[in-house]
Amino acid sequence: MIEDKNQQKTELSDLGEFGLIDHLTRDFKIKQKSTIKGIGDDAAILSFKNKEIVISTDLLIENVHFDLSYMPLKHLGYKAIIVNLSDVYAMNASATQVTVSIAVSNRFPLEALEELYSGIETAAKIYNIDVIGGDTTSSTTGLIISVTAIGEIKDGDEVYRNGARPNDLLVVSGDLGGAYMGLQVLEREKEVFKVNPNNQPDLDSYTYIIERQLKPEARKDIIKLLKDLDVKPTSMIDISDGLSSEIMHICKQSEVGCDLYENKIPLDPQVISTCEEFNIDSTTIALNGGEDYELLMTVSQKDYSKLKGNPNFTVIGYMKEKAEGMHLVTRSEMKIPLKAQGWKSF
Amino acid sequence: MIEDKNQQKTELSDLGEFGLIDHLTRDFKIKQKSTIKGIGDDAAILSFKNKEIVISTDLLIENVHFDLSYMPLKHLGYKAIIVNLSDVYAMNASATQVTVSIAVSNRFPLEALEELYSGIETAAKIYNIDVIGGDTTSSTTGLIISVTAIGEIKDGDEVYRNGARPNDLLVVSGDLGGAYMGLQVLEREKEVFKVNPNNQPDLDSYTYIIERQLKPEARKDIIKLLKDLDVKPTSMIDISDGLSSEIMHICKQSEVGCDLYENKIPLDPQVISTCEEFNIDSTTIALNGGEDYELLMTVSQKDYSKLKGNPNFTVIGYMKEKAEGMHLVTRSEMKIPLKAQGWKSF
Repeated sequence: MIEDKNQQKTELSDLGEFGLIDHLTRDFKIKQKSTIKGIGDDAAILSFKNKEIVISTDLLIENVHFDLSYMPLKHLGYKAIIVNLSDVYAMNASATQVTVSIAVSNRFPLEALEELYSGIETAAKIYNIDVIGGDTTSSTTGLIISVTAIGEIKDGDEVYRNGARPNDLLVVSGDLGGAYMGLQVLEREKEVFKVNPNNQPDLDSYTYIIERQLKPEARKDIIKLLKDLDVKPTSMIDISDGLSSEIMHICKQSEVGCDLYENKIPLDPQVISTCEEFNIDSTTIALNGGEDYELLMTVSQKDYSKLKGNPNFTVIGYMKEKAEGMHLVTRSEMKIPLKAQGWKSF
Repeated sequence: MIEDKNQQKTELSDLGEFGLIDHLTRDFKIKQKSTIKGIGDDAAILSFKNKEIVISTDLLIENVHFDLSYMPLKHLGYKAIIVNLSDVYAMNASATQVTVSIAVSNRFPLEALEELYSGIETAAKIYNIDVIGGDTTSSTTGLIISVTAIGEIKDGDEVYRNGARPNDLLVVSGDLGGAYMGLQVLEREKEVFKVNPNNQPDLDSYTYIIERQLKPEARKDIIKLLKDLDVKPTSMIDISDGLSSEIMHICKQSEVGCDLYENKIPLDPQVISTCEEFNIDSTTIALNGGEDYELLMTVSQKDYSKLKGNPNFTVIGYMKEKAEGMHLVTRSEMKIPLKAQGWKSF
């Protein structure tokens, strides 16, 4: 489906491991004052003075987390950074640096890795973070990407998963289910392509949801917006595995219950129309779809006036006492227990 | 060769991703004051006050970096931590935390991962570091381990690769070539085992070199010793890829040359005898073997008296002007240019 138009192929063995890292990162610029020493020594050195440090790490495995038959390498590099930054923002922190390690089999020419790193560099530029280290090695099969994201936060600004209290508002940024439905469209086109490689897919009516899947963004803007609005959530988590499982993480760690209102869940019109086309229930998708990288937070009632009417936030429910349990209140006002299907990698 | 005596097998899918991390890390204790929040949120939070932060990361891939047919999983977990701590010590820093991510195919039962994590926990205990996060996911084939090590250092104490000056002493800790010769013995026994599975190998005369391969240590003690002796090296690197390539890193980054004396390279008697048995030149092994995780440093001549006679350090050469090049001075006093074969993963 995604054709590799790049005809030039340089064998990785022509560069060797040291040459490869130098080559791939030579244009990367250091932008953060806190980066004292980046790539090129045994370790990187960072200096944060009176800030605390935030660290998060993720592994992305070919054919488990991504499929190169429809994921362009540049997008993959971008997304690998985004998913880690999202975890840093979910602590209410600023992201400042990343390390990126990759393992590749020799079926990847140098030009493919250059594509991957151009996506990494683009994300680093847009989110103003430094790439400070990493490891490059061979794999026996496929591509493996490991990213560790580093951020800074003022002592006391941290927002954990365990601070939600009964009566807090349950609030989500953006809209949900897009990334999952984008994946469904891409999977369908892949099957069509297998049958007829000459078929040119018309994806115009799916641009938003495909972008949500292939080029997600991390909600750095929401962290800034919360500061501007002087709202500190009582708990926060990023939505990587689906709304349902993230709500349950907050409830479990905060020892509270919640009512989530089905009719409040924000859905893009393209998600709704694609769900109808695929004959899937859009609520199920929003609850279990995952990969939207929106922020889910709980906010004290006293802050309601600050968020009210702001198009970046949707109040989707209320926290309850733990004994009341975790429920979805349906459009027909039935209360059904929340279940976490999430994204199971095993 | 290494028999799995553990008959109990629990499918990973019985636990799910969240259950798995909780299960594997439930006994891990937080020991470092700088760890504010460890495993269990979107990211970990660390606080270092007036210290700088050191970060290093490595990927270990099955059948590229390790072979489970002779590497017990507990040792592998231990070694995965050690190789990363070694990079932190090579900056003259203290290691304080690690994140550990693993990807496993479902051929690994839970009990195998428990073994792996018991090695990780043992290393964390011995080196007094906290395991503060990670990711657990599935792989399509084999086992992948990604470790990021974090350390702290007082501003000004950092030792980079680029500080060596002409006339500095070239100094190495411990002895070299053991890990590589241990690997040769293990590879040979694996072949014997394939032919005759009932053969019980007699490895008594290889205990030191096999331990160097299967259970290496990082030279935390050397960093402490250098402080106690009031010696700050002008440059330092850990020996993961072989002495030759590490010397060349220092020379290249410091823009100096060097003379390395063959007759000064420290070799354990077991390395010498095993090299004779395998009919391999022991100097070649020390130069190119890798995985010894000793520290290579350059030290100002004025500090010579502090290191002299100390069994932990061996002076193996001198730094020269860049124009003089990088040479091995052989036992027969021939000067031959150093070459970096190192460990090529591509």
